[in-house]
Amino acid sequence: MSRRVAAALVHYPVHDRQRAVVTSAITNLDLHDIARSSHTYGLSDLFIVHPVAAQRALAERVREHWTRGSGASRIPDRTPAIALLRIVPTLEDAVAELGPGAELWVTSAKSAASGLDFPQARARLAAEGPPVLLVFGTGWGLGDAVVERAMVQLASIHGRHEGGYNHLSVRAAAAIIFDRLLSLQR
Amino acid sequence: MSRRVAAALVHYPVHDRQRAVVTSAITNLDLHDIARSSHTYGLSDLFIVHPVAAQRALAERVREHWTRGSGASRIPDRTPAIALLRIVPTLEDAVAELGPGAELWVTSAKSAASGLDFPQARARLAAEGPPVLLVFGTGWGLGDAVVERAMVQLASIHGRHEGGYNHLSVRAAAAIIFDRLLSLQR
Repeated sequence: MSRRVAAALVHYPVHDRQRAVVTSAITNLDLHDIARSSHTYGLSDLFIVHPVAAQRALAERVREHWTRGSGASRIPDRTPAIALLRIVPTLEDAVAELGPGAELWVTSAKSAASGLDFPQARARLAAEGPPVLLVFGTGWGLGDAVVERAMVQLASIHGRHEGGYNHLSVRAAAAIIFDRLLSLQR
Repeated sequence: MSRRVAAALVHYPVHDRQRAVVTSAITNLDLHDIARSSHTYGLSDLFIVHPVAAQRALAERVREHWTRGSGASRIPDRTPAIALLRIVPTLEDAVAELGPGAELWVTSAKSAASGLDFPQARARLAAEGPPVLLVFGTGWGLGDAVVERAMVQLASIHGRHEGGYNHLSVRAAAAIIFDRLLSLQR
């Protein structure tokens, strides 16, 4: 890719299943799975966004274990993936780290009529441009405040047909989106 | 798709990280994630293959909880996905349930020079033919005994370049492979 592409996994603001805005807890396997997918597809960083210091400390301990602790010596393949983790309190921190002009691209399981389709999004990433932050929500999806300030909303993933069942885990959705946008193999 | 496509998640025989042949334990999140991806992409069944009765009973309890227990009333969206789970002791049982002529297609993170590429595999699934069982290994990948008896070995997933980092979780790999083979959206 010509542009720097990073991802962010957001724990606040996200929806719960009644669509209230909540803070979700960090899931250990999200960090591993999405870091491994991020590294496979050449992303520069995986920002873990959590407003609660104790939750950030937990994520930092996971990072430490797999980059410098006993996890790193036991399963060295995991190290370069987990090393992509950057744990921050807000999405603004992640955007700021990417530098001036960074674009926020959000993902959603809900159909957005105006969503950018994947072939177009792929072409935009292959062209020159500022860094892009692909933003994923935990729980029942990103809060409206995040979606509204995004420069791009990606189309939803449909499997077998438009409007069909789409309740992918965030781990699966991130893997599919990285593959659609960044894979060199077709 | 014209053909019936199912998936199997194998816990024996699989490799550990020293490439010894072992039996892996069931990971709860594998069942959820791969069932959700399977249902999104229209697969007919997700076979959970485990030789140990106590492990199969655990998987059956997960299925029960999310299809008829309190999980089903709390998160109804999960029910049709988890209902795809079929828990069997051996891969032969899964093949037998798909009926005469069912084809075993294996997946692997290791580059197979002879692996069927994804566009060709996609075309084969779109044509008429017997049922196909897509087989995924846990741990460090499927045992040789499974790979050797497969009719098709799919190409490995490469992210940014051939021979690059590829240490996807089985949850992520299954999602990407379903998307590449079965998605109607391109």
